Amino acid sequence: MMVRLAAVLLACLVAITVAVAQPADPLPSWKDGAAKSAIVDFVARVTTEGGRDFVPPAERIATFDNDGTLWTEQPFYFQLAFAFDRVKAMAPQHPDWKMRQPFKALLEKDTRALAASGEKGLLQIVAATHAGITTDAFAQSVRDWLASARHPRFNRPYDSLVYQPMLELLAYLRANGFKTFVVSGGGVEFMRPWMEKVYGIPPEQVVGSSGVVKFQIGPDGKPVLMKQAKVEFIDDGPGKPVGINRFIGRRPIFAFGNSDGDLQMLQWTAAGPGARFAGIVHHTDEVREYAYDRQSKVGKLDKALDAAAAGGWTVVDMKQDWKEIFPK
Amino acid sequence: MMVRLAAVLLACLVAITVAVAQPADPLPSWKDGAAKSAIVDFVARVTTEGGRDFVPPAERIATFDNDGTLWTEQPFYFQLAFAFDRVKAMAPQHPDWKMRQPFKALLEKDTRALAASGEKGLLQIVAATHAGITTDAFAQSVRDWLASARHPRFNRPYDSLVYQPMLELLAYLRANGFKTFVVSGGGVEFMRPWMEKVYGIPPEQVVGSSGVVKFQIGPDGKPVLMKQAKVEFIDDGPGKPVGINRFIGRRPIFAFGNSDGDLQMLQWTAAGPGARFAGIVHHTDEVREYAYDRQSKVGKLDKALDAAAAGGWTVVDMKQDWKEIFPK
Repeated sequence: MMVRLAAVLLACLVAITVAVAQPADPLPSWKDGAAKSAIVDFVARVTTEGGRDFVPPAERIATFDNDGTLWTEQPFYFQLAFAFDRVKAMAPQHPDWKMRQPFKALLEKDTRALAASGEKGLLQIVAATHAGITTDAFAQSVRDWLASARHPRFNRPYDSLVYQPMLELLAYLRANGFKTFVVSGGGVEFMRPWMEKVYGIPPEQVVGSSGVVKFQIGPDGKPVLMKQAKVEFIDDGPGKPVGINRFIGRRPIFAFGNSDGDLQMLQWTAAGPGARFAGIVHHTDEVREYAYDRQSKVGKLDKALDAAAAGGWTVVDMKQDWKEIFPK
Repeated sequence: MMVRLAAVLLACLVAITVAVAQPADPLPSWKDGAAKSAIVDFVARVTTEGGRDFVPPAERIATFDNDGTLWTEQPFYFQLAFAFDRVKAMAPQHPDWKMRQPFKALLEKDTRALAASGEKGLLQIVAATHAGITTDAFAQSVRDWLASARHPRFNRPYDSLVYQPMLELLAYLRANGFKTFVVSGGGVEFMRPWMEKVYGIPPEQVVGSSGVVKFQIGPDGKPVLMKQAKVEFIDDGPGKPVGINRFIGRRPIFAFGNSDGDLQMLQWTAAGPGARFAGIVHHTDEVREYAYDRQSKVGKLDKALDAAAAGGWTVVDMKQDWKEIFPK
């Protein structure tokens, strides 16, 4: 009992110290300006007890797109880089791939033939690299890849190309009683193995696209979950509010995206009753990261940019609003 | 600042009082015996820092079946009672139902004709009562039903027929850092509107069967999610570990069920590394609730009872192990 009492007293001492200390800027990588003010003002409004816009903690749901919102998505989605690297790693066990498209094109770095294989070719690559494997083994393959692969331009691990200002925003929201979720078109089994460490978002708060998974009793009598070569759910566009409804079961009061694939999530969030925050990361910084919007093949931002202007959503100008892009 | 400091000091005073007070029995409705000991011992093992079986809080995932595990499921699943009541309530808007099976049989209380319509008839009833409605309106219809409907035998609201010992268990696990989830064959949209209040389990921790939902912009320009008459996912049997993987993304270390529909969830939980708890509620009390197992049409417990004996799982004998069944 004395030990427990001492622990409580120590915890109190820490709490008092924190309470007395001057509050530091919770968003140090955000320049002062409209975007930062909009975020801070919104959080103050929904967390002020007795205020008109107060939201109980249980309902402070915040959803974030991943590709282009929390980490880089250029020159192409990182999950695709993972799939390509896996084809190369798996090629020795698949000698027929030397003669079969789209694998042949990929192994020979024949980008023209690869592009010609189109969406069908892409789905074949994803099926070959994301199926016929247990969920546990697949998660390990993702962790192994992140430990060794490097981004072609920045020569850094892919999971270090996350946006420092957004990491601060996630932590700031959580410190204010929000529950933070990822709602991404990316594969859920590709995201869960690393997001807890990198974003502080546990697996059960990661919503994404998924393939069919089958429960089987393995040859050793132990149950396994086998990934099948069949798409089950695409968590993109109108699929995002559907995914939010399915996985979270509550409408967010705060959402952030960066492309037209996030439009419906932002609409769904903004249309709820009470105070709402809808934000868009606009990629405007080709020096420190990339600049793209209406014409981009990856992360096209066109309709959602118009909707942001019409709806008074917060558009973050990466070049103007962010002091830092990546963690140092 | 002074107000905040005072609040911290007050919180400390409360914490010290709690620390000094004698710990009360966290499971007062459980009789002392093997089942209670197994639960308390397991929780002590996984929460003892430095111990061989210690599990970090983030990995303390506990999953519970609902029908027959957390609330009663006799004389038939409560969601079916909801569907039947909805047919009656909707009948004035559907005059053709007077001539169409299975609706005619239901409205005329012709149980023989209703039974003859079989699973196909049941699906028609579920489709008619669970689709063509927005998710928000459906949630309201569930709340309205719970506020007025009464169980035929106990003459109490359905959401008061929850098991007091299991409510204590949920709270006990959460007090020990567990995150508690429902993983049920019931419809997720039927469960979420009331489980936070009744079980302390928020919508995002409720996994269940689901129908297809579609994002639409309504005539007023506002987005809605419309429930469609198409089954999307059955969270039962082998679907339970699949649902756990999809929604939670982590293997539970603790699971409770009561029927063969929970077998694979219990197998999946028990087969993980480290300390594991698999529990079954055995309905043995026809006086205070119901007694049924291997021969029951609802909540059949046959294979899972054998698996429990073989695997050393904890089987709760409702009559022997529980002092109380329902909250007073």
